Amino acid sequence: MGERERALLERIRARAAGAARSGIRVGIGDDAAVLAVRRGEEPVVTTDFSLEDVHFRRAWHPPEAVGHKCLARGLSDVAAMGARPVAVFLSLSVPAELARAAKRKAASWPQGLSWVDRFYDGLLGLADEWQVPLAGGDLAQAPGGKDARVAADIVVVGAAERGRALLRAGARAGDVLYVTGTLGGAAAELRDLQRTPARFRGVAEEKAGHPHFFPQPRVAVGLALVRRRLATAAIDVSDGLSVDLQHLCEESGLQAEVDAALLPVAAGATLKDALHGGDDYELLFTADPGTRVPRRIGGVRVHRIGRMLRRRAGRAQMMLIADGRKDELRPEGWEHF
Amino acid sequence: MGERERALLERIRARAAGAARSGIRVGIGDDAAVLAVRRGEEPVVTTDFSLEDVHFRRAWHPPEAVGHKCLARGLSDVAAMGARPVAVFLSLSVPAELARAAKRKAASWPQGLSWVDRFYDGLLGLADEWQVPLAGGDLAQAPGGKDARVAADIVVVGAAERGRALLRAGARAGDVLYVTGTLGGAAAELRDLQRTPARFRGVAEEKAGHPHFFPQPRVAVGLALVRRRLATAAIDVSDGLSVDLQHLCEESGLQAEVDAALLPVAAGATLKDALHGGDDYELLFTADPGTRVPRRIGGVRVHRIGRMLRRRAGRAQMMLIADGRKDELRPEGWEHF
Repeated sequence: MGERERALLERIRARAAGAARSGIRVGIGDDAAVLAVRRGEEPVVTTDFSLEDVHFRRAWHPPEAVGHKCLARGLSDVAAMGARPVAVFLSLSVPAELARAAKRKAASWPQGLSWVDRFYDGLLGLADEWQVPLAGGDLAQAPGGKDARVAADIVVVGAAERGRALLRAGARAGDVLYVTGTLGGAAAELRDLQRTPARFRGVAEEKAGHPHFFPQPRVAVGLALVRRRLATAAIDVSDGLSVDLQHLCEESGLQAEVDAALLPVAAGATLKDALHGGDDYELLFTADPGTRVPRRIGGVRVHRIGRMLRRRAGRAQMMLIADGRKDELRPEGWEHF
Repeated sequence: MGERERALLERIRARAAGAARSGIRVGIGDDAAVLAVRRGEEPVVTTDFSLEDVHFRRAWHPPEAVGHKCLARGLSDVAAMGARPVAVFLSLSVPAELARAAKRKAASWPQGLSWVDRFYDGLLGLADEWQVPLAGGDLAQAPGGKDARVAADIVVVGAAERGRALLRAGARAGDVLYVTGTLGGAAAELRDLQRTPARFRGVAEEKAGHPHFFPQPRVAVGLALVRRRLATAAIDVSDGLSVDLQHLCEESGLQAEVDAALLPVAAGATLKDALHGGDDYELLFTADPGTRVPRRIGGVRVHRIGRMLRRRAGRAQMMLIADGRKDELRPEGWEHF
């Protein structure tokens, strides 16, 4: 390893070490990290790939937003289990020119910020917010020459109350269906971005109010749902309400009925965005009709949007009530691969 | 998601479900996996990138070997902590032509085996050997068109006796230095492969005796070292003995002395291969001089190769005794990025 590579890795380690370390007994620098999971908890693990030109474009998305969203996706999965995030692992491979730029800056940090540094800024900024340390991972130069792309694989390990993790399969007939925050905002912003990318140049300085670039994972809501025994099942709305609700229906063996008039459609978004737009990272959950679900949990508004019903043979999995009619709701969101 | 994509994912899920599931409470199909870690254990986590043209070549390495080695690297890290593997997560991105081939075969499985299927064969075969289930991950088409490359990120979660994980920092002055198996075999085989790739066409049918293609992680040895309280520190020899021993010296703040005559040089390998060749995945560990270390642990030979000494200021970190002389041993193995 050359001096510059060593300096780069040391710098990343130092930044990671500056973050909260409560979740780690042994961090970066051994064969594996040893995590601190409390008595009565069990580990939950989620992984998510963020791929250039699939999940983001280097010309459109500032590196801070790519790093932020990469981690937000993992934190959102942990939130949907009702677990607390314990540690984060990042495997990042970048094209040669980004690797070279990062190494050049290694000696002069923090004067010049490379793409890789700015990516870590976004990721570690969100990690700090939730006091979750970066405990390991890999940094590699992507093969493929000029056509190589950035690929980031994020692993978030969380801890759930033993036997209390919120599953997709937990909903029961008669349960009420809720969603946090607003829906469709990320899809609406993506549409604006596709039309006029130049409008979003300064987005990394603003962060708040940009749901497509800087989504907020609902970690505090997920934890409260478990601690206060509010929910019977949960999933995060990453692929669009209609797709994620279908997963909930499938795993619980139920039918869902959504009332369009109750959907919290984000400002600037359409009903279609709210139903089928992906990337919102809100929590969709069910609760027993006898449970008093607060209108606000962990600072986030919670909206009742429908209910779960027994599914009769041959009937549609999801129904949408709109304009006094009840029609089948078909899944149309974002799908992978 | 189209019918073919669904069929492919279903097939992978079914194969993953066929493996041992004891380590998982909730597996593929929820927002995150919930793992079963026992009372008195704590989770350990390791991630490893396997990149085409960095760690393997599609023209040289059968997909079974790529999948096997991808997991072997992660299992070896967990072994070096003295932990038992609990669950595996794989994020795999493949170029469009491999993704298309995998989807085409989805309907006709198992008649035609695509690259992706054969990769999973290798990975799941090793996972079965150690009874560790595939609990999640991602499968994506790599962006970058014709020049896209395969990238696999493996996560292995293990469980260690609380406070007993084998760290690199645990060695003490006076400790004896041991290594498992033989060294240099992978480097020697890689050299043969570079010379005459055609010789290794049938390697996927043979597996055993091919340390470069199908390395054996020392999981049983690592577990025994902890259970029988044999070792004070451990690391796996992934980057070459000289590099990994240096990590042990650095983290423990000691000097190491290696006796060349005691090194278990693999058949066909040179002393240089044994000292600096990477990819062996043997365990390098230290033990108190008063500990009786068996010559064989978990079916694997264990060799005493040197000792750990107090490090005096200005002295070299590693020394090699060879031909009656004692010289500085410099790290020269495989380095990343």
